[in-house]
Amino acid sequence: MSLDYRVPLRDMRFVIDEWIGAPAWWRSVPVWEDLDSAMAQQVLEEAARFVVERIAPLNAAGDLEGCRFEGGEVTMPAGFREAYADFVAAGWPTLALDTDAGGQGLPQLLEVALQEMLAAANHAWLMSPGLTHGATACLMAHGSDALQRDWLPKVASGEWLTTMCLSEPQAGSDLSLLRARAMPEPERDAWRIQGSKIFISGGDHDLTDNIVHLVLARLPHSPAGTRGLSLFVVPKWIAGANGERVRNGVHCEGIEKKMGLKASPTCSMHFENALGWLVGEPHRGLASMFVMMNAARLQVAMQGVGHAQVAWQRAHAYAHERAQMRAVSAPANYEGEPGQAAPIAFHPAMRRILLDLRATVEGERAIGYWIGYWLDVAARHPEAQERQAAGQLASLLTPIAKAFFTANGFTAASNALQVFGGYGYIHEYGVEQTVRDSRVAMLYEGTNEIQGIDLLVRKVLGDGGEALRGLLAHVNGEATCCAASGDAVLHDVGARLQALVAEVQRVTGEIERGSMGDRELPYRVADDYLALLGWLLLAFAWARTLRIVLDAAANDPFYAEKRSTAQYFFAYPLAAFDHRLSLIEAGCRAPLPHAQHAFSD
Amino acid sequence: MSLDYRVPLRDMRFVIDEWIGAPAWWRSVPVWEDLDSAMAQQVLEEAARFVVERIAPLNAAGDLEGCRFEGGEVTMPAGFREAYADFVAAGWPTLALDTDAGGQGLPQLLEVALQEMLAAANHAWLMSPGLTHGATACLMAHGSDALQRDWLPKVASGEWLTTMCLSEPQAGSDLSLLRARAMPEPERDAWRIQGSKIFISGGDHDLTDNIVHLVLARLPHSPAGTRGLSLFVVPKWIAGANGERVRNGVHCEGIEKKMGLKASPTCSMHFENALGWLVGEPHRGLASMFVMMNAARLQVAMQGVGHAQVAWQRAHAYAHERAQMRAVSAPANYEGEPGQAAPIAFHPAMRRILLDLRATVEGERAIGYWIGYWLDVAARHPEAQERQAAGQLASLLTPIAKAFFTANGFTAASNALQVFGGYGYIHEYGVEQTVRDSRVAMLYEGTNEIQGIDLLVRKVLGDGGEALRGLLAHVNGEATCCAASGDAVLHDVGARLQALVAEVQRVTGEIERGSMGDRELPYRVADDYLALLGWLLLAFAWARTLRIVLDAAANDPFYAEKRSTAQYFFAYPLAAFDHRLSLIEAGCRAPLPHAQHAFSD
Repeated sequence: MSLDYRVPLRDMRFVIDEWIGAPAWWRSVPVWEDLDSAMAQQVLEEAARFVVERIAPLNAAGDLEGCRFEGGEVTMPAGFREAYADFVAAGWPTLALDTDAGGQGLPQLLEVALQEMLAAANHAWLMSPGLTHGATACLMAHGSDALQRDWLPKVASGEWLTTMCLSEPQAGSDLSLLRARAMPEPERDAWRIQGSKIFISGGDHDLTDNIVHLVLARLPHSPAGTRGLSLFVVPKWIAGANGERVRNGVHCEGIEKKMGLKASPTCSMHFENALGWLVGEPHRGLASMFVMMNAARLQVAMQGVGHAQVAWQRAHAYAHERAQMRAVSAPANYEGEPGQAAPIAFHPAMRRILLDLRATVEGERAIGYWIGYWLDVAARHPEAQERQAAGQLASLLTPIAKAFFTANGFTAASNALQVFGGYGYIHEYGVEQTVRDSRVAMLYEGTNEIQGIDLLVRKVLGDGGEALRGLLAHVNGEATCCAASGDAVLHDVGARLQALVAEVQRVTGEIERGSMGDRELPYRVADDYLALLGWLLLAFAWARTLRIVLDAAANDPFYAEKRSTAQYFFAYPLAAFDHRLSLIEAGCRAPLPHAQHAFSD
Repeated sequence: MSLDYRVPLRDMRFVIDEWIGAPAWWRSVPVWEDLDSAMAQQVLEEAARFVVERIAPLNAAGDLEGCRFEGGEVTMPAGFREAYADFVAAGWPTLALDTDAGGQGLPQLLEVALQEMLAAANHAWLMSPGLTHGATACLMAHGSDALQRDWLPKVASGEWLTTMCLSEPQAGSDLSLLRARAMPEPERDAWRIQGSKIFISGGDHDLTDNIVHLVLARLPHSPAGTRGLSLFVVPKWIAGANGERVRNGVHCEGIEKKMGLKASPTCSMHFENALGWLVGEPHRGLASMFVMMNAARLQVAMQGVGHAQVAWQRAHAYAHERAQMRAVSAPANYEGEPGQAAPIAFHPAMRRILLDLRATVEGERAIGYWIGYWLDVAARHPEAQERQAAGQLASLLTPIAKAFFTANGFTAASNALQVFGGYGYIHEYGVEQTVRDSRVAMLYEGTNEIQGIDLLVRKVLGDGGEALRGLLAHVNGEATCCAASGDAVLHDVGARLQALVAEVQRVTGEIERGSMGDRELPYRVADDYLALLGWLLLAFAWARTLRIVLDAAANDPFYAEKRSTAQYFFAYPLAAFDHRLSLIEAGCRAPLPHAQHAFSD
């Protein structure tokens, strides 16, 4: 039995080529006219080789060794530095960066697949390069020519790593409470930053010979609240008066002891008169920062998929190896003795868990990659209207994917652990680390509750339902195709999907109307609403999958498994849609009491 | 803000005095005629003081320090030995032991409350004395006079700690695969044990000067399977030929690195020609062991309650202290500025989490203590028929409580962590440790899936529904009382509870009929069926609570919170009952495919 991570290249190909049909679209885009399915596969195979050979083997060891903080400096676990150097040398950070900017110009869709692989292999290691794309996008969009000249090339290539310095002890979800200050430094045409930041991933490390911090701070006399925040580039090392390398006034003061991600240093940073350069307009720092955060949210969503994938693989492999108890039923081709203990994979309770995991992770992969595809359309489509619609769709889908996939990733890891019985609780089987590592993704880059509010209040109610109508049109289109099928199973799935869309429309209207006289209503139901759309998206993913595989070679086991997993999904897990709908209806109906006192004792 | 554990004495009193009405019953039992509410409270207050002052402060430190394994011996974290010595000296291990056997003879109901406190305060510490009651019960029921004379007094008092040596590498849930052997040792009228055991909690430690292992092994020529297992007492230290203290052939070979419970050593044990004495009849070891396991399962259930309690308390305290974002609404008596950041406890998403936690933990406390009460009735009622019915009810409820409460305990801890945002991921806030520690309770003492099968296949279908009818009669009795109320809210709750009972009866019949032609059916739905009954029990708990508090002083905030939590429970969380019902119906309808191949790549 091997519990090593294997990259699901076959399923990735299925999603890219058949479920999305991306290669056909690539042919119509000038910069990608030479890109075809075979070449995309080659890229993913090469990525898979690198990830499996260089990154995955450091995962358990990094968790055991952790990061060291000594004399104000962080030392990463053994092997991390070398693996990172090779990652940069092989050009992986610039996979989807424009060729103009020195990148390889490949689709975001492939970048999303790479992110999934890295997260599945070694989430903690991925934390270090995790902000490269966001910082690159931020500097490209908002940095002055001088800033771009001095910092962009090495940030984009990954030669220097970056951080995002937002949180302060009193300000986590609420950035209006930030206190860090910036005072003018006219001599250097720059600013002096003063303040403390916490929870800074990669605030210090020994992977690169400089670290470029992107820091939110307030200018003097700036407005209160989030409109008074400005964004600064604050490097660890700067050029001195004579061009020599000088240490800037930014220091790591300690690293947190965390539940997981032990090989990723979470730093408390102190900025003491640190030299910094303004990015974008004064007081507009939050807008610049959001460029980073949106890119990061899709990455985090794919962490949820990666965790679910590796947890499912391990549980699946273990369940086929471990024999306990006689089975009530066995696969047709099983050759074991009926009186003997059977692989636990045959027991119904374990099959339920394994099928739940599979249905979740494969459905999420389709949706996650689909968002990557829409980002490509938003960037490359010749028509502005199509670009705008694609961007709107990606923006609507991102908070759903972030919160729904990460919650499922944690649950998937815990359910996979259950398959291992007592062994699951032991470090060496790997799955308990996945439970611990996956938990953070529900918290960072905006807690999952913040995503729920972003989705319902801002993106659904806030635009009068336009973005939602765009999404539902896609889902309904698929439903109509399925319902028109002569195949009875597919027809029923199509009808079911149409009914789900109708329910979403109905309950969205109910929320909208109810919110008029009850301002708290959308906040009561936002989490359940996000999950409702999450289940709708999985139903959409499996309906389209079922339609595709209906015509495929029936004797190819890959398609046969897709078919049985799709049918399982509609028979069992999708019941969660109705559960969420009930909770939303409860929220529309029932008030939510405030606590009246602290404790009853 | 204090995140220290506080024992919910007020709620414990409510459950014991009002929800169960135990003191009225105690008066009718000769051995307890002097026991009243005030005295029971005094016992719990004293227990709470000990737990809060001596046990809780070792929890985080024990997690950080862990156990040390050196030279074949295990060293426990600092302070554990002293706290354990004081625990024994104060007589806590014998709280509910018969006075004839040297105990204090108090009700199991109070023992259950003590177990909850200990688990909430320090689950890892509790692991050491965790088997004392089971081992005592086992030796009292099955040990020979000589065994009882030599081992029982110090086992019962806690002076010597015990272990339960079942699992071997190839045999976890499936004990029929055990290989450990016992050969006769006629000279000592004993046996020689040979074999290896894994996952032995407290297999070695420095808390007591002897350790008494209870070991399952096979006699020569014993039948195959579980019917060939015999149970042995195998002490770490034995008397030599001249009465001197001699080390027996049982050794710890290592301790596991686990997700949590780091202050509880999980040992690999090797028995090399170890001297042991048979407990009970040859080949009947499993039956003797089950005496231990049943007691242990209720303890584990209360670990789930303890974890949920401490997680809820911490999240509640933090949410009232931490201010982020303006609130959409605030309690009537809130005096903060409307434009300022409000305590996150006011935000609807946080209120939902906190109310879910409260509704779960307080409902579970009522049910868990109720099981303790039925154990008392089973032991002390003057009429045999009542004792038998009470024992049957407790036996039906135990697997539900074990699996449902532990799954909820883990989920509660994770949801409480979410309230802390990023801080929840940091060790010093305590809640991430609760997530890690609580996870094991879903695995040990029979995985939660084993509990589901025990409940549905053995205890519901296996006895023709007799035990279930007994439980439903209690629930229906409560429902009828509520439905007869002139209060509209209580009336509706009663009618709802009646409907839930009818649904349980209907779906149980459906499962029963469906199982005739489809042997796998009950195994497909067992987990959901267990959870369905779990939600029914919580509904029962909150219906009775609502009925009680309706007559109570309306201006006592304790009752006011009970009322609003009960209403919340019926409005929101109980939707999970319908979700489980849907999943059971899916299981009755839809087959469950077997995996056709290992992976798609």
